[in-house]
Amino acid sequence: MSSHARPTIRHCKSCGAPTHQALPDDGDTRERAICTACKTIHYENPLNVVGTVPHLNGRVLLCKRNIEPRWGKWTLPAGFMELGETLQEGAARETQEEAGAQFELEDLITVISVPKVSQVHMYFRARLISDVFDPGHETLEARMFARHEIPWDELAFQTVRETLTRFFDDLDRQQRVTHQFSLS
Amino acid sequence: MSSHARPTIRHCKSCGAPTHQALPDDGDTRERAICTACKTIHYENPLNVVGTVPHLNGRVLLCKRNIEPRWGKWTLPAGFMELGETLQEGAARETQEEAGAQFELEDLITVISVPKVSQVHMYFRARLISDVFDPGHETLEARMFARHEIPWDELAFQTVRETLTRFFDDLDRQQRVTHQFSLS
Repeated sequence: MSSHARPTIRHCKSCGAPTHQALPDDGDTRERAICTACKTIHYENPLNVVGTVPHLNGRVLLCKRNIEPRWGKWTLPAGFMELGETLQEGAARETQEEAGAQFELEDLITVISVPKVSQVHMYFRARLISDVFDPGHETLEARMFARHEIPWDELAFQTVRETLTRFFDDLDRQQRVTHQFSLS
Repeated sequence: MSSHARPTIRHCKSCGAPTHQALPDDGDTRERAICTACKTIHYENPLNVVGTVPHLNGRVLLCKRNIEPRWGKWTLPAGFMELGETLQEGAARETQEEAGAQFELEDLITVISVPKVSQVHMYFRARLISDVFDPGHETLEARMFARHEIPWDELAFQTVRETLTRFFDDLDRQQRVTHQFSLS
């Protein structure tokens, strides 16, 4: 997962003229950036981050980040969903890119809204077929951790911590649930 | 839910200069619209559509659309998730805007990827507190339907049909599951 700061909309992406903030006249209840020349309305919406909990025999795969933000911290493989792909395809792609892992994608374990940054983080369980990895350039190191070995104070993101906690709790309870919640 | 056609990125939304399609030099694997002047990279990502299955005593609330696309067709209350809100807040907002219903939001029933239009549709069960509605300007009529009364051939979207089918199947089986799949 790389950073994705979105520049403020000051110009029309269609014609390049300046935009102004105004309420569209189509019944919309929010101000949007509207082009002063061609009148195009520019919408901005939340982003999906998709990833996996790659697991084998009760241990999970974590990746040590080789990119900012949170360089050197541990994370689950995850990144921004791309145009034209499904949630599952995005989660699988990120797992291949960041860990070079072989796995079988399973069910959604967490669906976490993070409204402060206008993101939704969605993680799938993924059963590893091998514990040999071939991490890409975004990853310094990829290795397996049992619950008591997880570097809880060195995790990159709160959604990673929340997802790992629920993964091990579900394992203890021998259940598979899609956990749905928000982080403030 | 209104239409949300996104214009092609031809100009930088930050400075207005023309963009060109190119591979960023940060290890990215996809071409992006990059500003020829200020070098800003412009990302485009899938959109989330959030809605509810408002239900009471085995019947569900449908809204007859007063907007394009699919004017006059029946739908579940749903729309595009906005910046700064959670999935739950977005689903509740759309239900209030389109149906003026009083309800208690419950769990996710469907998470449906629609890669052809780069969208993810997510519906929550919502228990109605009253069967009196006050629909907004996007809705011609809002009323309750038992399963055998649903106008299956007059539904606005395939994700609405898929979600309704799963709602009634879950009711028959006395189960609550988060269904996860894709539509081609």
